[in-house]
Amino acid sequence: MAGNIFGQLFRLSTFGESHGPAIGGVIDGCPPGIELNFNAIQNELNRRRPGQSAIVTQRKEPDEVQFLSGIFEGKTTGAPIGFIVPNTNQKSDDYSHIKDVYRPSHADYTYDKKYGTRDYRGGGRSSARETISRVVGGAIAKQVIPNITINAFTSSVGDIFIDKPYQALDFSLIESNAVRCPDAATAARMEDYIKQIRKEGDTVGGTVTCVIQNVPVGLGEPVFDKLHAELGKAMLSINAVKGFEYGSGFCGAKMKGSEHNDLFNTDGTTKSNLSGGIQGGISNGMDIYFRVAFKPVATIMQTQTTIDSNGNEVEMQGRGRHDPCVVPRAVPIVEAMAALVLTDYYLLAK
Amino acid sequence: MAGNIFGQLFRLSTFGESHGPAIGGVIDGCPPGIELNFNAIQNELNRRRPGQSAIVTQRKEPDEVQFLSGIFEGKTTGAPIGFIVPNTNQKSDDYSHIKDVYRPSHADYTYDKKYGTRDYRGGGRSSARETISRVVGGAIAKQVIPNITINAFTSSVGDIFIDKPYQALDFSLIESNAVRCPDAATAARMEDYIKQIRKEGDTVGGTVTCVIQNVPVGLGEPVFDKLHAELGKAMLSINAVKGFEYGSGFCGAKMKGSEHNDLFNTDGTTKSNLSGGIQGGISNGMDIYFRVAFKPVATIMQTQTTIDSNGNEVEMQGRGRHDPCVVPRAVPIVEAMAALVLTDYYLLAK
Amino acid sequence: MAGNIFGQLFRLSTFGESHGPAIGGVIDGCPPGIELNFNAIQNELNRRRPGQSAIVTQRKEPDEVQFLSGIFEGKTTGAPIGFIVPNTNQKSDDYSHIKDVYRPSHADYTYDKKYGTRDYRGGGRSSARETISRVVGGAIAKQVIPNITINAFTSSVGDIFIDKPYQALDFSLIESNAVRCPDAATAARMEDYIKQIRKEGDTVGGTVTCVIQNVPVGLGEPVFDKLHAELGKAMLSINAVKGFEYGSGFCGAKMKGSEHNDLFNTDGTTKSNLSGGIQGGISNGMDIYFRVAFKPVATIMQTQTTIDSNGNEVEMQGRGRHDPCVVPRAVPIVEAMAALVLTDYYLLAK
Amino acid sequence: MAGNIFGQLFRLSTFGESHGPAIGGVIDGCPPGIELNFNAIQNELNRRRPGQSAIVTQRKEPDEVQFLSGIFEGKTTGAPIGFIVPNTNQKSDDYSHIKDVYRPSHADYTYDKKYGTRDYRGGGRSSARETISRVVGGAIAKQVIPNITINAFTSSVGDIFIDKPYQALDFSLIESNAVRCPDAATAARMEDYIKQIRKEGDTVGGTVTCVIQNVPVGLGEPVFDKLHAELGKAMLSINAVKGFEYGSGFCGAKMKGSEHNDLFNTDGTTKSNLSGGIQGGISNGMDIYFRVAFKPVATIMQTQTTIDSNGNEVEMQGRGRHDPCVVPRAVPIVEAMAALVLTDYYLLAK
Repeated sequence: MAGNIFGQLFRLSTFGESHGPAIGGVIDGCPPGIELNFNAIQNELNRRRPGQSAIVTQRKEPDEVQFLSGIFEGKTTGAPIGFIVPNTNQKSDDYSHIKDVYRPSHADYTYDKKYGTRDYRGGGRSSARETISRVVGGAIAKQVIPNITINAFTSSVGDIFIDKPYQALDFSLIESNAVRCPDAATAARMEDYIKQIRKEGDTVGGTVTCVIQNVPVGLGEPVFDKLHAELGKAMLSINAVKGFEYGSGFCGAKMKGSEHNDLFNTDGTTKSNLSGGIQGGISNGMDIYFRVAFKPVATIMQTQTTIDSNGNEVEMQGRGRHDPCVVPRAVPIVEAMAALVLTDYYLLAK
Repeated sequence: MAGNIFGQLFRLSTFGESHGPAIGGVIDGCPPGIELNFNAIQNELNRRRPGQSAIVTQRKEPDEVQFLSGIFEGKTTGAPIGFIVPNTNQKSDDYSHIKDVYRPSHADYTYDKKYGTRDYRGGGRSSARETISRVVGGAIAKQVIPNITINAFTSSVGDIFIDKPYQALDFSLIESNAVRCPDAATAARMEDYIKQIRKEGDTVGGTVTCVIQNVPVGLGEPVFDKLHAELGKAMLSINAVKGFEYGSGFCGAKMKGSEHNDLFNTDGTTKSNLSGGIQGGISNGMDIYFRVAFKPVATIMQTQTTIDSNGNEVEMQGRGRHDPCVVPRAVPIVEAMAALVLTDYYLLAK
Repeated sequence: MAGNIFGQLFRLSTFGESHGPAIGGVIDGCPPGIELNFNAIQNELNRRRPGQSAIVTQRKEPDEVQFLSGIFEGKTTGAPIGFIVPNTNQKSDDYSHIKDVYRPSHADYTYDKKYGTRDYRGGGRSSARETISRVVGGAIAKQVIPNITINAFTSSVGDIFIDKPYQALDFSLIESNAVRCPDAATAARMEDYIKQIRKEGDTVGGTVTCVIQNVPVGLGEPVFDKLHAELGKAMLSINAVKGFEYGSGFCGAKMKGSEHNDLFNTDGTTKSNLSGGIQGGISNGMDIYFRVAFKPVATIMQTQTTIDSNGNEVEMQGRGRHDPCVVPRAVPIVEAMAALVLTDYYLLAK
Repeated sequence: MAGNIFGQLFRLSTFGESHGPAIGGVIDGCPPGIELNFNAIQNELNRRRPGQSAIVTQRKEPDEVQFLSGIFEGKTTGAPIGFIVPNTNQKSDDYSHIKDVYRPSHADYTYDKKYGTRDYRGGGRSSARETISRVVGGAIAKQVIPNITINAFTSSVGDIFIDKPYQALDFSLIESNAVRCPDAATAARMEDYIKQIRKEGDTVGGTVTCVIQNVPVGLGEPVFDKLHAELGKAMLSINAVKGFEYGSGFCGAKMKGSEHNDLFNTDGTTKSNLSGGIQGGISNGMDIYFRVAFKPVATIMQTQTTIDSNGNEVEMQGRGRHDPCVVPRAVPIVEAMAALVLTDYYLLAK
């Protein structure tokens, strides 16, 4: 009955529901003496924030983080870092229509059956608003391992995808458009498509690709806590994620060994990197890259038939201000979870 | 520096290398009073065992498990269950040629760099022989949750795949052929292909699909320990796995919400099940199904150029008796890891 | 570098320093559907609060808890319960005189050496103000296991002790005096002694005895997580604690087996209870009782010679408003930690 | 239902019952590259072994450890170290008379009630024979932190105690007598007393004192995982332990702050060490010392009235070959648990 703590040495505990007074968390195990860049932390929250562009939900939330402990004179002290992000836009009445209704492909039904109760306001704990705490935690984690760079981006929306390897992309362009796709032409097509989907009152899925560079050799704890296994768990724990693949991924399952093996250079680097920077669960110093699949947002603006908690059929129509495609806002969340894993494994490997 | 324990309440600790005296493990947290079916446990080991058919490695290992504790008069006592499986076929000289050589796409390089030392005999701890302990643990786990049925099968080998939904398959046919594919025609093509690959001295990847049925509603511990996140981690921790998807998976990322949502029946079941039996990280009582991607085995019988531990280029040719395709033997391992997760989460949900 | 989470299934993460904006915590794993008595929670904080009587520190802090999540319509939801208790009386200047000074028998030196930095204001994280979060957590834990009763009391102050077995005491009198000693005559002597000690600018130690009743048979997880082992750890983690004994304790080490054995009644209860309600690490249904030793508070109002962070000898005199004896305020903290352990083990045993 | 794993980074899983085929364990997280002294490991087992002297149980067990993994060419590899110690003296018929009887102050009753079943042969899992695995684990742990010295000794038996501070003792004499008391005169009295107790068919308790020297500053993870809190848990998890105190312990609870405070020398050491080498849960570099109380062995050779599992009164007389005083054989167990904690915290502090 307890799954709200992530990590072994760098541990993030999160709390908060979409319509409670605040979202927050505690980071236990942050090394002392790190001079925090608070703007960088807030900037990550801004990347996740609703209302940031025309293609995301138009809810307004400032999402400003307040730190309550673990920091003294601008530096981490080694004590746990407690933080909160107040919820300022709690329009609970938006949700009265779903009080007794199980929305299709939401967690309403399973939460109600598991816990025997349900905070129906905006999904309660199952709301993606919970990921705010992950973004704060990840933004701090990034500052613990500043040499490791983590870049995620939108690699597909619906059927539209970047038809280039990540090496051909300029990561500095990720933030240059609202979809967070570093390929401008593809980004434009994605953006148009999302707008069209929103007009239809529909939603669409997509994928995020993440590339982690400058990783030291030796991160990963086989046999169960392999680096990619923990990355996979981290990504799959994000709302709406349906799949994870790293390196050659599902394509690799179609290949022959003679094609797939990464031959060595004499310095220990490899000529190809179908392995995705990890061998036997341990980083080999090459780029780590993986892809995460997000399903379409379940809340659509069309009429759906569903059931209430008594098993009666009811008609419902999505209301409120929702994302037509969750992927652009998921980009910083993917990065945050990657940073949490890398930092934890960095500390484990010391 | 410690990643060899899996689970929270039903915890499996494993130990052992391919060429040490034994592989083994300890299960801590097995409920008391379970009358164990020892044949069923050994049968799972037999499904994983080398030499079982013409398309797997021809090494001979009896792989017989000996239980050392936690069982009294045939029943579990609640005390930890210690077990070993002796290694009887330790042809260490098979490996002398790779003592100082890093095999491409193996864990030789990363283990050496991380631990500063390396048991070069057969991969040491990174050998897939380690999965023996998982199979024993999983076979016991299955007996803790006997009502939940877990069926895995080979769903693709290279480009050959089953072109039917799992609902159209007869799981009782999985063991009827050497590839463990329940579709006879596809199985025959897979088998031929694997034989051809072996003749070429090559290897090939594939996928395993797993279907879990009769799952009670309510298993899963959001937000981080979602049921599918832990299943993903479990699968990704298996040797050679590159990807995991559940329910609609990567296909779901191309869909619209109006297509993807699973509408309810009045009894709480759903008309479709693109969610894959899990909503918000909690089982909803529908079938859980997922797919796992395995890369081609890295050891090929062709000559490869690689490096030694001094960074010198060397030629090497795979020797020994290896699997041309790991997928058929991976089927019971996937089931075992699924059983470990389900049992752990079953106990957590009580 | 991470020790701020307590428990396995009912897990309390705490954060906060004495002079930061707030103390707080997160409870992960609280069962859903519990109708919380908020007055009872605040009442426990009031028992711990400074300024509550003439014999404790005269600092004024309201210590009012605010809940941020995990509660909906007065009931727990199963989601993590986040809470904060603002620090309103942060007279940081009280501490400027110790900024570079290591106070004797405080944690100043070890924190500075371990973390390379130190929040010198009031002890920072090492302040007993941190126990506020434990009291909140314990007060909620008590409501998860309402049938189990936990009564702690001051059993000695300096050389003054209750010369009766706990069975001869009326626990309803614990709160009838400022020292929290249920024996009125002894309480009066303790109170006088504490006042005298304070006049001397000195401090004094003491013991707390805790009695847990109506415990179900079967709580405890041998061999390492024995019930009394976890109780011992819980108590030893409280500031200023130097010892823990349960049942016959250190006296039992002087006894013979023929004197010490608890003979059974036919209903499974025992005629004596030198075992202290636990056999083999598992509760046997008899009363659990234990005793906790607290050292005298290290801050005294007398002049002491000590060193600064450069190793120079300096004179210092304690200032501020400190407790002459920590024991009366420690009583609710002991109960809180006991409640956390009992609740966690209750959930583990289910 | 799972308490058989100890430690966070250096984790020992144990298994085995007194009358099963073997006792054993797995150490996960042992650093690689340690050249093991196998004689030193076996020597610790010999110190714990039955039959070693005239004042311990005369059962004969060679207690020879076999390592199964994690060691290659004499050095640890970083992989988990699996080991077993076969039980060669399984006289199960010795125990048939207690099959349905709950022995007073043993764990028979609580195990039966908790697990619904019971391995009645020699206490099963609750037998102190389980501590074999701890001694193996501790003996390896000692070799991970070779600079830290750990010396435990018998400090009292019944009313007989060493009337000197530990600084006046010569630890090299601990092994010079059968009781493991470094003060020859006291040792002789203890030995005589134990022999007399045995003649009476009785048993007696005692205490073990442990001194840990050359500890680096900075070990300990406040606030919950304080070094002494984990040491306390470790000791309390040993069979028959009723109490733990460190530094001034229960005596400290009678003292004034002005007496108790440890004043600093200019090099950061302290003039006195009533703190016991730990401040705020973190080692300060001074000697750590603590005392552990053991109750008298519950199995006595006198007739006792007890009950069977149906609640009938029955007469029973202890049979078999038992220890009249467990303390001499507990000395290496206390050291082992101390070594496990110190090693784990050493790795945590890195």
